[in-house]
Amino acid sequence: MIQTILNHRSIRKYKEKEIEKQVLDEVLLAGTKASTTGNMQVYSIIVTSDKAIKDQLWEVHFKQDMVKQAPVILTFCADFNRFNKWCELRDTSPGYDNFLSFYTASIDALLAAQNVAIAAESHGLGICYLGTTTYMADKIINILDIPENVIPVTTLVIGYPDENPDLTDRLPLEGVIHYEKYNDFNEQKINKIYEEKEELPSTKELIKINQTENLAQIFTEKRYTKKDNIHFSKSFFDVITKQGFMNHE
Amino acid sequence: MIQTILNHRSIRKYKEKEIEKQVLDEVLLAGTKASTTGNMQVYSIIVTSDKAIKDQLWEVHFKQDMVKQAPVILTFCADFNRFNKWCELRDTSPGYDNFLSFYTASIDALLAAQNVAIAAESHGLGICYLGTTTYMADKIINILDIPENVIPVTTLVIGYPDENPDLTDRLPLEGVIHYEKYNDFNEQKINKIYEEKEELPSTKELIKINQTENLAQIFTEKRYTKKDNIHFSKSFFDVITKQGFMNHE
Repeated sequence: MIQTILNHRSIRKYKEKEIEKQVLDEVLLAGTKASTTGNMQVYSIIVTSDKAIKDQLWEVHFKQDMVKQAPVILTFCADFNRFNKWCELRDTSPGYDNFLSFYTASIDALLAAQNVAIAAESHGLGICYLGTTTYMADKIINILDIPENVIPVTTLVIGYPDENPDLTDRLPLEGVIHYEKYNDFNEQKINKIYEEKEELPSTKELIKINQTENLAQIFTEKRYTKKDNIHFSKSFFDVITKQGFMNHE
Repeated sequence: MIQTILNHRSIRKYKEKEIEKQVLDEVLLAGTKASTTGNMQVYSIIVTSDKAIKDQLWEVHFKQDMVKQAPVILTFCADFNRFNKWCELRDTSPGYDNFLSFYTASIDALLAAQNVAIAAESHGLGICYLGTTTYMADKIINILDIPENVIPVTTLVIGYPDENPDLTDRLPLEGVIHYEKYNDFNEQKINKIYEEKEELPSTKELIKINQTENLAQIFTEKRYTKKDNIHFSKSFFDVITKQGFMNHE
């Protein structure tokens, strides 16, 4: 069980093979067993396997091949739509049109997503998260007919793996674990934490390809630039507002 | 493996028994194997077992007994502090002082948290998430010496269970799963989805205790009121700003 978690690697190449209905149902059921704030279950999972709709999703997810290849795309949403409708039908006024409620619903959606990811892997399926979901939330909303009070927050590509990549390197535990309180980092500690990663042959290859001086510059100058981050921050904020989560009066 | 997920229930009463170091280490290691955006690992986990610090955390987490009882409290943080320090030491300027970066780091933290939760349960440990983390983020920052560019987003209480509660009821799958696109709800569908939950003896008991007309009103009028949500929305926003994630210039 823990072995499934310890052996996780993201899969970016998939076989054409469909996912059996019974397997997919069990994986989705596992998603619904995750903890959820006050048992409100303020999230939803959109299961897309239709080729035409998947092609539209591929377009907005930066045309990553795996979105076309994988048989199923799961879009996880922070969702107060169903809950609010229920409240209104029960003669009471829902007060969930604010940022905290959006963030609470995001937590629900993300815990469900990780349950789905692990359940899928325990069935021999592969998964990959798409970080492009928050960048392109406005376009995904249009493609998937997503109503007000619902926001897509992450996506899982899921299917049978057609590759067997190595485990991804991770920082040593002291890079992310703090005991009792937060123990801040000095230069020596940062160097020690990043030493192994910076010495990997794959890192040196990446630096060569990207023509930067070091690995950090690949992140700041190529992959996640300040300019892009600010652009996508603003567009995601617009989505949060438009979907009805910024009423603070 | 999937059985661990399907059998999840939150535990609110804990034995005095400590968690063995080897078990805790494996559980934390499992946390670090979750997917993370661009393998940046922009999260941290603060492991608190010191009684005096736990007492302070108990105070801010609405004095829930389990925070004192459980041997270990894990505070999961969205964390760009370490990553930014690394960038600066590598002569490059990090552009992660914006909302998108905070949200990205939140996703990292929450996927790691759910890995930890499942790994813990597979070792016979019990867990409970504390939603009070976002409400009280400013106070938790003070207690745990959390620096700029870091925000606590959720907390797991973890220890050996001293109760064996029933599985929590969940809505039928059609309450959260949509096929192909989002299929919005009409009155009939909402009634069908909530029928079983509303008919539970435990629900009827709750309504009696809370002196409301129905279950929805317990949420809107007692547990998660509009007034509280707006209050905590504003304070969480202040934290996001103060910790350095609202620079959109």
